[in-house]
Amino acid sequence: MKNNFLRISLIGSILGVSLLTVAHAADPKPEEVVDYRQSVYTVIGWNFKPIGAMVKGEIPFDAAAVARHAQYVELMSKAALEGFSKGSGPDAVKDTEAKAEIWTNWDKFETAMKNFQQEAAKLTETAKGGDEAAIKAQFGKTAETCKACHKEFRKD
Amino acid sequence: MKNNFLRISLIGSILGVSLLTVAHAADPKPEEVVDYRQSVYTVIGWNFKPIGAMVKGEIPFDAAAVARHAQYVELMSKAALEGFSKGSGPDAVKDTEAKAEIWTNWDKFETAMKNFQQEAAKLTETAKGGDEAAIKAQFGKTAETCKACHKEFRKD
Repeated sequence: MKNNFLRISLIGSILGVSLLTVAHAADPKPEEVVDYRQSVYTVIGWNFKPIGAMVKGEIPFDAAAVARHAQYVELMSKAALEGFSKGSGPDAVKDTEAKAEIWTNWDKFETAMKNFQQEAAKLTETAKGGDEAAIKAQFGKTAETCKACHKEFRKD
Repeated sequence: MKNNFLRISLIGSILGVSLLTVAHAADPKPEEVVDYRQSVYTVIGWNFKPIGAMVKGEIPFDAAAVARHAQYVELMSKAALEGFSKGSGPDAVKDTEAKAEIWTNWDKFETAMKNFQQEAAKLTETAKGGDEAAIKAQFGKTAETCKACHKEFRKD
């Protein structure tokens, strides 16, 4: 059990490091980068949507389920940035909703992504606390970071 | 720091639980399920490929990078099963390589998935050890579980 704790805490450290390594080792093609980032967002959506349904009362509220879904949102938020490597914008690839502003205004985009990462991490934390009102409030804050980034950096 | 350890160990528990909850809360459409599972495999491929490139000597070996990629493979291996909910097979959806045998032979499929999860977890463990030969061997074992499952349950 102790070993397991250590193992998983190391996992956390490793995932943290991934924030710093945006470049991808095997030089994937622009289409592959786009496919990757769209997949990351699909996994995020898959997990975010049922939390939203619970918050809206469409399905029964289940704090443990929220925590599980939020955890994947958090992990994927840390994996998203490497899906926006240089040369994977709308000038290189047709089927992308990513605006060129991501790369011309990278610092702002990176900040928007970090906001999402932070709020998603807080959502996991809050979900584990089990307080329904707090979870709903934190879901709202997380969704705001999605909207803010989409508004500025994603085509409608 | 201690709190962080606790947080991340709880994350591990939560992810473990996900193995048991195949059904998805918000009842997604078959196309959404397929999109989700294909996305999970795209994220797996994105992370598995550079490890393969290192093992083959195509790019420089980097144990820390292997560990980071392996971690995502491991996490996604735990997220894959819920992408195969009933009613998301080739009888319901056109664009899928999943064979009907997944659902007619679910126990065997689940075992194949668990084999993948176990070897992927071992790959993360091994990668953190930093022993290049051991990592390469464990990469091979993990790849074998991919092949075994694809051979039986995925169309060519």
